[in-house]
Amino acid sequence: MKLKVIDLDISSGSTPVAIMNESDARKLDAHFGDRISIRKGQKRAVAIIDVCPNKRIVPSGKIALFKEVISKLKCKPSDYIEISLEKKPDSVMMIKKKLDGAVLSDSEIRQIVSDIVENKLSDSEISYFIGACYIKPLTFQEIVSLTKAMVETGDTIAFEPPVFDIHCIGGVAGNRTTPIVVPIVAEAGLVIPKTSSRAITSPAGTADTIEVIAPVSFGISEIKEIVKKTGACLVWGGDVSLAPADDKIIRLEYPLGIDSQSQLLASIIAKKKSVSATHILIDIPVGKGSKMESMGKAKALREQFIKIGKALNINFEIMLSDGSQPIGNGFGAVLEMRDVLRILSNSTSQPTDLREKSLKMAGLMLEMSKKVKRGQGYALAKEILQSGRAMQKFRQIIEAQGGKVPKEEELKLSKFSYIFCAYNTGRIVHIDSALISQICRLAGTPRDKAAGIYMHKHVDESVNVGEPLMTLYSSSREKLSEAIELLKNVGFSTVVIK
Amino acid sequence: MKLKVIDLDISSGSTPVAIMNESDARKLDAHFGDRISIRKGQKRAVAIIDVCPNKRIVPSGKIALFKEVISKLKCKPSDYIEISLEKKPDSVMMIKKKLDGAVLSDSEIRQIVSDIVENKLSDSEISYFIGACYIKPLTFQEIVSLTKAMVETGDTIAFEPPVFDIHCIGGVAGNRTTPIVVPIVAEAGLVIPKTSSRAITSPAGTADTIEVIAPVSFGISEIKEIVKKTGACLVWGGDVSLAPADDKIIRLEYPLGIDSQSQLLASIIAKKKSVSATHILIDIPVGKGSKMESMGKAKALREQFIKIGKALNINFEIMLSDGSQPIGNGFGAVLEMRDVLRILSNSTSQPTDLREKSLKMAGLMLEMSKKVKRGQGYALAKEILQSGRAMQKFRQIIEAQGGKVPKEEELKLSKFSYIFCAYNTGRIVHIDSALISQICRLAGTPRDKAAGIYMHKHVDESVNVGEPLMTLYSSSREKLSEAIELLKNVGFSTVVIK
Repeated sequence: MKLKVIDLDISSGSTPVAIMNESDARKLDAHFGDRISIRKGQKRAVAIIDVCPNKRIVPSGKIALFKEVISKLKCKPSDYIEISLEKKPDSVMMIKKKLDGAVLSDSEIRQIVSDIVENKLSDSEISYFIGACYIKPLTFQEIVSLTKAMVETGDTIAFEPPVFDIHCIGGVAGNRTTPIVVPIVAEAGLVIPKTSSRAITSPAGTADTIEVIAPVSFGISEIKEIVKKTGACLVWGGDVSLAPADDKIIRLEYPLGIDSQSQLLASIIAKKKSVSATHILIDIPVGKGSKMESMGKAKALREQFIKIGKALNINFEIMLSDGSQPIGNGFGAVLEMRDVLRILSNSTSQPTDLREKSLKMAGLMLEMSKKVKRGQGYALAKEILQSGRAMQKFRQIIEAQGGKVPKEEELKLSKFSYIFCAYNTGRIVHIDSALISQICRLAGTPRDKAAGIYMHKHVDESVNVGEPLMTLYSSSREKLSEAIELLKNVGFSTVVIK
Repeated sequence: MKLKVIDLDISSGSTPVAIMNESDARKLDAHFGDRISIRKGQKRAVAIIDVCPNKRIVPSGKIALFKEVISKLKCKPSDYIEISLEKKPDSVMMIKKKLDGAVLSDSEIRQIVSDIVENKLSDSEISYFIGACYIKPLTFQEIVSLTKAMVETGDTIAFEPPVFDIHCIGGVAGNRTTPIVVPIVAEAGLVIPKTSSRAITSPAGTADTIEVIAPVSFGISEIKEIVKKTGACLVWGGDVSLAPADDKIIRLEYPLGIDSQSQLLASIIAKKKSVSATHILIDIPVGKGSKMESMGKAKALREQFIKIGKALNINFEIMLSDGSQPIGNGFGAVLEMRDVLRILSNSTSQPTDLREKSLKMAGLMLEMSKKVKRGQGYALAKEILQSGRAMQKFRQIIEAQGGKVPKEEELKLSKFSYIFCAYNTGRIVHIDSALISQICRLAGTPRDKAAGIYMHKHVDESVNVGEPLMTLYSSSREKLSEAIELLKNVGFSTVVIK
């Protein structure tokens, strides 16, 4: 069937769609969701069909195409193209098998993942796959296959082993350990090419925090260069195509907040395997408010990591940490960078909880590397930090990325602020990470890097009525009042004083 | 945030999408799949966000909108609109609950269905819902809620009870009983406003077959008029918005061929309930090649129909019929209409299997209506058919729809044909419905109404080698050869002679 091109002048961002008039679709015996092969001369593209009944919008004899298809075929509006029905990719029937409860083989999972990456599957078809994996958790072997397939279908960065990496399961506000741990262990000689994410639901991600003082967007060869020079990097993972299938899956999990354990495991390990990590420290915060509310679940997750690690030749060290309250004093990119700088410069006003946790993690990594014996890592980490050598290494990494480490007080906070004070006298028994994040988001984080919350007190400290509990910052008067409004409503649950 | 409109000049056909530049999305703290509220003056629309990283396609400061949104806001390209983040509809979290294994309440299911109809949910979100219902079958109460919600969110056609209807579960080629049963029972005084579908995977649907001799597309008031005049109609259901949620769900089930039993039940019953049916005859063909391969499954489905019928005040009569072979001689719209006309005109060359099955069904309906006692329906149906009164009623219905009943031999078949002959001497032990359908589709059905297969022989008949088994028709020489090629490859499995 020959049809005339309408240039949609838009990119679908995912699977290319072609919109046909209903009568043409019927002539072709094509339905919504079917695939068509589009040819112009020797060039060929595949698109999924959407059917439009309105003759005015897509008249019979014409076909509306997204940019992806137009540029692949190098065709112009009003060109004629030849279309024919295309077979469904085999992966569609494999997804159906998964819905029907089957266990998929290594090659089947590889096929699904590669078709996701190559935009051969529609959002709806990928969602069926995610839903099935969520309801019926993947077997151990399926998780291993999924992880491998995610790595193979993306870019990888090769380093000489051993290569170290670190990951926190998340869900705890603050907790910006990475910029402290990485320079400590890199200073001890470990290679640690750390890629981080931006915030999705938190006040700031590690990438947002580093961006306060240095660029974080780099290509693969630049990352290799930085790591070659300093032994480490602190970059954003979003500019390199490491395990891109994972990004596409996460994009479709986001609207429903789906977070399946099989997916979580494959996702984390694939990203690390893509930078050729051989030794990975995983921090699993446990407790009310974190992602792992029970110790039982956390321990089961630990076992899974170790088991998959064996199958993929990765050494995992798992740390179960206290996830019941935020860690550090600042929440929001600038406030978190201030905490980091205070710790690295051994300031007297540093948050001791964040410092202790970072030292513990760095110590575990040093023990994994066999640089020290078991039980002696913490001491070495502390020595590197206290001597100022960690700060030196941090400066080196930041400068290699084209940034500059400022004095902590040079980092400016947003101009509007509000102090929330203790509403009675007593002891703080709980600080709620999820509410802290929500208030920060209203105040403008993560885009407004200088917005956020500074916590004056921690759990177990005593307070007197009227004493400052936290200071709220925002660059927008309007956003600040929205955040204050929420804080006034839920303040009692955000910081519980008894 | 104020953005300048780019008119996409295209209709999404489902949930409206707005495409933003990545940097604007980040400023708004909006992610793929989030919803935005779009305002122009007093007018307001909601769209789901797609994020485009390419500045050339959607520059920062602009937003690309689909026709639905443009026309709702009555805005022109380059107008400025005000956008803000919108809360997710509650139904998204209800779908998440279903994924997590919860049983949904009546009001939750109603919310999901109404949001599907109002295009508030993305294809991905609806697919999660369908996938969850498929993997974890709905409870009886959930099916009842789903059915009711589907009816309530669509148009309905009110008739005085009792109102009769008929449905076949499908999967058997030919089997065009409806155009025979409807005039018989309407002639006996039953009100039967029959809406039918077009073919999805078969050579022809009832609507395609009727369309050979009459229009089938009507609005609600026209359907009421036709039924008022004749007691019945034989129209296409796709032109009226009966249970539109069902249509949207089926559209997303189609690519994977998902066919969950809960969905099947809700779908059928909702369509019937929308035309106020109170008495419904369901034909469940059982046997190799049909949708219900085992008698056990068919009986379980029967129980479900009857139980749901009680909850919804509908009398169901379920007929378990032989689904192991095609029914009638012709497969394809014209060939099937020829079979129908032969039976209605008591021709000597009529397919007796189709006639017998139709009489049995009509008899059961007459018994349901209490026009006759149990056991006497078949005789009355036969009398109405043999007397020519069924044909008279059929003529009346077709004329009320603006059509004309021709003589059977006036219906022209496609000009290219091919006769497939017996490859050995013996007895026919099996004819495969699925393969018959596949060959017909290659020959051009359902679009090519005059294409298809005429079967010269049935199961249990004896044949001699070289004797004609079937004649293939197609309007296209090319399509005919494709169909012949398949037939030559699978002929032995299509008609099994032993």
